[in-house]
Amino acid sequence: MSDRLRPESESTLAATAAELLSALRETPPLTHCITNTVVTGFTANVLLALGAAPAMVDIVDEAGLFAGVASGVLINLGTPTPEQREASLEAVAGANAAGTPWVLDPVAIGALPVRTALAHDLVAARPTAIRGNASEILALAGLSAGGRGVDATDTPDAAIDAAVALAVRHGSVVAVSGAVDLITDGHRVVRIANGDELLTRVTGGGCALGAVMAAFLGAARTTGTESLVAVAAASLAYTVAAERAAMRASGPGSFAVELLDALASVQPHDLAAAAHIEERAL
Amino acid sequence: MSDRLRPESESTLAATAAELLSALRETPPLTHCITNTVVTGFTANVLLALGAAPAMVDIVDEAGLFAGVASGVLINLGTPTPEQREASLEAVAGANAAGTPWVLDPVAIGALPVRTALAHDLVAARPTAIRGNASEILALAGLSAGGRGVDATDTPDAAIDAAVALAVRHGSVVAVSGAVDLITDGHRVVRIANGDELLTRVTGGGCALGAVMAAFLGAARTTGTESLVAVAAASLAYTVAAERAAMRASGPGSFAVELLDALASVQPHDLAAAAHIEERAL
Amino acid sequence: MSDRLRPESESTLAATAAELLSALRETPPLTHCITNTVVTGFTANVLLALGAAPAMVDIVDEAGLFAGVASGVLINLGTPTPEQREASLEAVAGANAAGTPWVLDPVAIGALPVRTALAHDLVAARPTAIRGNASEILALAGLSAGGRGVDATDTPDAAIDAAVALAVRHGSVVAVSGAVDLITDGHRVVRIANGDELLTRVTGGGCALGAVMAAFLGAARTTGTESLVAVAAASLAYTVAAERAAMRASGPGSFAVELLDALASVQPHDLAAAAHIEERAL
Repeated sequence: MSDRLRPESESTLAATAAELLSALRETPPLTHCITNTVVTGFTANVLLALGAAPAMVDIVDEAGLFAGVASGVLINLGTPTPEQREASLEAVAGANAAGTPWVLDPVAIGALPVRTALAHDLVAARPTAIRGNASEILALAGLSAGGRGVDATDTPDAAIDAAVALAVRHGSVVAVSGAVDLITDGHRVVRIANGDELLTRVTGGGCALGAVMAAFLGAARTTGTESLVAVAAASLAYTVAAERAAMRASGPGSFAVELLDALASVQPHDLAAAAHIEERAL
Repeated sequence: MSDRLRPESESTLAATAAELLSALRETPPLTHCITNTVVTGFTANVLLALGAAPAMVDIVDEAGLFAGVASGVLINLGTPTPEQREASLEAVAGANAAGTPWVLDPVAIGALPVRTALAHDLVAARPTAIRGNASEILALAGLSAGGRGVDATDTPDAAIDAAVALAVRHGSVVAVSGAVDLITDGHRVVRIANGDELLTRVTGGGCALGAVMAAFLGAARTTGTESLVAVAAASLAYTVAAERAAMRASGPGSFAVELLDALASVQPHDLAAAAHIEERAL
Repeated sequence: MSDRLRPESESTLAATAAELLSALRETPPLTHCITNTVVTGFTANVLLALGAAPAMVDIVDEAGLFAGVASGVLINLGTPTPEQREASLEAVAGANAAGTPWVLDPVAIGALPVRTALAHDLVAARPTAIRGNASEILALAGLSAGGRGVDATDTPDAAIDAAVALAVRHGSVVAVSGAVDLITDGHRVVRIANGDELLTRVTGGGCALGAVMAAFLGAARTTGTESLVAVAAASLAYTVAAERAAMRASGPGSFAVELLDALASVQPHDLAAAAHIEERAL
């Protein structure tokens, strides 16, 4: 997979996203998640609704093996028990050995020492993608002490320098979630202004997006799409579904239900029609 | 409880299922679940909706004791942490000592070594029932290396020989989930063609059925119903509720919500009216 | 914060509850939960819907630190793994050192030895509030062997002596959940007759209330409201939302969804209008 993307217009990006969504549904990527206990069920449901095949394998002596056969891997640090910490390192080694793309979600690092140390070990293993809110990306880049939990206390654009630095340092695509998502590979930056504020009122609204990125990266291996585009496609599909869900929801409870229905019903051609994307060279 | 069932027509089986559902609601069976972190909440909600009393006790030095006082026990191997592995062995010992019926759900065994070893240890303790998809049942019988996770890559009828072999070897009722559920005690086979494809789009759709089987087996102790019939009754009640839910759902998110409502509202007499059951001697 | 409350009428209590709900939404209290794997997602969603900021930090070497910066802490013993047991003790030490209010929910103690021992250790550290059903409160006070799991097998009023004894012994507000919630600080008793039976058909219906109490206690630090009133306000807001949800629900599945929507939409002035509260000196 090349790390270089030919200049292309936003509409081309949305068109590629549409193709990736079709590819994902045709051959559901086996998406291996090591994620926190708060959001495991919701994350699996998001992947199933979208059309991917989730598997939550966070057991030592299984995770490494499984990462080798999976299409994509998510490592989310929300509740990093000792078992999960060891399984995460094992999974990353297995993924890297097999060339499986993997996503690091450094939940709430900065103030919390155990996950912060683990995140630094993991990022050194060069994740295909890193997803976090601005506070987490700043903390991972060493530019901030982090937020006060899973809240973003900074806006994505406040983290652009940190995101670019991480992308260059580790060869990763870095996605900063917020009202406008910011995604960079260190050379170009994509901004996506889709989504809805209700995503912040559902636990796992951000965590599940990391899993969707792993699924899209898995699908992208088959189509030969580069990682920046795959990560942007995941964000676009997810946030367009969120917009459709928000139109039907009466609050955060019904929004979560509608989001799953929308992830299942959103069609590739809907992505281009709804996309609010901007892509620029840095 | 006898392991022999008098020959009876399908309508008799549905009638017995209806009686069991009434009995379960009259005296909610305390259903002890050791299950994976992905589906604990959904599983408990399925049991509560149906009318059973769930308790998720997966702690060493508690699980064995609790299995002795529970009406039925589920051991699901979806995320078998060291704590859960030890608690599972303890619970099975407690259940067997007390005569509590228990269900083994060997999630994703075959390719994953830790749970595969545990499943073989557990099955040797003679579960009252074993529930899995075709790949898992084939793997447990030693006839396949298993699927690629929780997906069934084989149809239930592809696993009939494996199911019968397991049933005979361990004295268990074996239930193979799929588009048509197959349930056997090694002497007879019941096929149930109820349900809906949306069950495969909700995480825990299969895992929660294992818990429902444990609840029905608990209720069956009181009524003296044999295990094959109790397991079939659980499948029937669950899949009939799923059909009713699917009629009202707009996608996988709303289906999960409607399934819980349907499990609460389905009445004993609905089972016979909706049943697509076939029962045969082997 | 004073442990003494000036005599005030029920309408004053509802008015204070309304003010607290406003304060909570204006400055979302960071609510640190160590809770069981069955209800983590639902609990976080309840807090987010209401307007609080949940963080589920149950990792050793993080939990103590985090309890020091959180606004309120919940320790729920539903699935007390070794990691969570150590993290709970650490969190309580951190909370007490920082003056952070904390809630103990002794789920299913009495019959289950590991959590019962832990609950006795924790209660000795003088929780700001204790929430449980009647069986659990009786067991914690040493007056009963406990229920058969998370069911209440006794009514709240059967536990009034136990609740008062615990309140006096440990300087805690004690809340006994049931059809009529009973809340006491050992000097006065508040009874709240709001809520709906559907809360008992959703897993986490009680556990999430413990988290809401931690959030209200966090908000109460800012407003200077005393703990008895904060705990009563949490119960009132939660049960009034439950009543509104029940009016729109068709069963336990849709009730859980509607409850989240109602927690987000319930307004401070709705509390006084709907309150069925009684407050008396002992």
